[in-house]
Amino acid sequence: MKLICSKSNLLKGINVVSKAVPSRTSMAILECILIDASAGQITLTANNMELGITTIIDGDIEERGIIALDAKIFSDIVSKFQENESEVTIETDSSFKTIITCENAKYTIIGKSGEDFSYLPDIEKNDSIEISQYTLKEVIHQTIFSIADQSESNKIMTGELFEIQENNLKVVSMDGHRISIRNIELKESYTPKKVVVPGKTLQEIAKILTDDTEKMVTIYFSRNHIVFEFDQTTVVSRLIEGEYFKIEKMLSHDYETKVIINKRQLLGAINRATPLVKEGDKKPIIMDINQENMELKINSFVGNMKEDIEIKKEGKDIMIGFNHKFFIDALRVIEDEEVSLYMVNPKAPCFIKDLEEKYIYLILPVNFNNV
Amino acid sequence: MKLICSKSNLLKGINVVSKAVPSRTSMAILECILIDASAGQITLTANNMELGITTIIDGDIEERGIIALDAKIFSDIVSKFQENESEVTIETDSSFKTIITCENAKYTIIGKSGEDFSYLPDIEKNDSIEISQYTLKEVIHQTIFSIADQSESNKIMTGELFEIQENNLKVVSMDGHRISIRNIELKESYTPKKVVVPGKTLQEIAKILTDDTEKMVTIYFSRNHIVFEFDQTTVVSRLIEGEYFKIEKMLSHDYETKVIINKRQLLGAINRATPLVKEGDKKPIIMDINQENMELKINSFVGNMKEDIEIKKEGKDIMIGFNHKFFIDALRVIEDEEVSLYMVNPKAPCFIKDLEEKYIYLILPVNFNNV
Repeated sequence: MKLICSKSNLLKGINVVSKAVPSRTSMAILECILIDASAGQITLTANNMELGITTIIDGDIEERGIIALDAKIFSDIVSKFQENESEVTIETDSSFKTIITCENAKYTIIGKSGEDFSYLPDIEKNDSIEISQYTLKEVIHQTIFSIADQSESNKIMTGELFEIQENNLKVVSMDGHRISIRNIELKESYTPKKVVVPGKTLQEIAKILTDDTEKMVTIYFSRNHIVFEFDQTTVVSRLIEGEYFKIEKMLSHDYETKVIINKRQLLGAINRATPLVKEGDKKPIIMDINQENMELKINSFVGNMKEDIEIKKEGKDIMIGFNHKFFIDALRVIEDEEVSLYMVNPKAPCFIKDLEEKYIYLILPVNFNNV
Repeated sequence: MKLICSKSNLLKGINVVSKAVPSRTSMAILECILIDASAGQITLTANNMELGITTIIDGDIEERGIIALDAKIFSDIVSKFQENESEVTIETDSSFKTIITCENAKYTIIGKSGEDFSYLPDIEKNDSIEISQYTLKEVIHQTIFSIADQSESNKIMTGELFEIQENNLKVVSMDGHRISIRNIELKESYTPKKVVVPGKTLQEIAKILTDDTEKMVTIYFSRNHIVFEFDQTTVVSRLIEGEYFKIEKMLSHDYETKVIINKRQLLGAINRATPLVKEGDKKPIIMDINQENMELKINSFVGNMKEDIEIKKEGKDIMIGFNHKFFIDALRVIEDEEVSLYMVNPKAPCFIKDLEEKYIYLILPVNFNNV
């Protein structure tokens, strides 16, 4: 194989597919990036068996072939070349010896046979939706914080529900203490679909999506896989098996107290309470809602803090406690200037949601001793 | 005590003195910042017994007094206030209860008696030199990388020699494999001085010095301490006891090979060799100097790399190996476009120095099997 491409194109491709290189594995071939120039184009591929990414890069093929190179070393080498426009030449022989030249430098490393590499599974592409790169990136960002971590025994909570009904995409994540829901209006109507996508896949894909509202992603659904196609890149991920929780049952539209509050003020006040929360000492923040005022307070071993915030209120006064982190996570990703909190009593979940329910954040309260 | 100052002034002061707060200690009082408003001005002080910093901040004293507050909590609280111009009020009572108010927030924390705090030692200030903040910051940056780390049994190598003779300040660091020397011309002549300053002190002081060439630092010398005075800040550090190494004996002016090389090219090539150095596998970079060419090469378990660089040479051809990191460290802090390397043989130190010896970097070579 012999090919020539610019440093910037090559490095861009490496950075994209590297997201599917596992950080630790016992199979050395999985730590590789496959360069496939056996057909008329140059593709880079990485695959950790859960998640696979392939991308096409511009360049000239002087001799067709394939080779697998250690991802870390390959990426280190290419990133050190000085000029973005420099031409990089990659040449291999039948014993997988690979010569990489660029500028004045010449590297010789030993690659692996492309035959040993696990190609991405071939997925039937007949069931798909379209969404902009920006919107997909945003919705991941707005929900990913409330998936359960990998140690969670209930595997389904480590992923996110993607549910399509007509022209609505609903994305849901939950970790046992809170639920995040986003509803997105699609440009077209589609047949109903319901899959659970691994959180890890979504985190990695968010890193390679652009903020461009014009550039689209096509998402294909199959029985066991989901495929994201955008730019020159294809991302294939396994789905998490099993039935997601019945979310609708957990949502209630009744409330005893509704609070309308300036988001920036509330977020600021909660942030200002955090210096008093020491690790391991899980003192809740307490919202004491009284007439047109919320007194936000915390009382920990370190000391206490209080701050008054003006609110609009419907219904009863209430005093209720929360884990500060859950409120910060949700408020950070809401763009509205004012948010509405809906509460029933100090033991029932609080809902932060807008009128059209484009977003719903459910947060369970925390018990507190009277402060 | 009751005092009022702006958030920005207070935070700036906290950030300065925090550099002397120990990260771990068994004495809780050392983790505190002392606020002293017992005289006509507000000073903040932190002291880890090796290094102490005190700074004066602008503000109004409504009631004189002193209090010691946990540095981390105090700093966390103040940094979370929204506006730089916000007024922060700090009020204490006789039981060390401290009320901090700013914007709408009100904190109550328990401080400690200022009486328990270790004030900075009172140093006689009659022997001093002057240097700009920029120059002091630069010279620390240009030498600090070659001090020995704290685990080194020879304590003296964990510090830097500051030696003044007439109008020359010589700063030296060494770690057993290399020596860094910088000579700085001072504006005046001074009586001879020779002290060893802890590396930790220099690292912290470099963080609070500005890049301003007009702003001066006065450095005072006493038997056991060094004092840096600049802006509104005083830094007092213990010195390391004992005699520093006789550097002059280690420097040689004889050479068999002199190489003049473009610094950026050499540094770039060495950087490009690093992807082939794996941790734990200490393969040297080899300079094969031959006529008007340096072939820089490395041969490791991962593969090999070579790069040709044009040079000007006086004297013999030579092939010599080095730890890549030592060359990178030295070349990074040299601003000259071309550097001169002086070598004797593959087992003798290499010198990187300019003609006036404003800088001298000595690097010991590494054995290598023929490559």
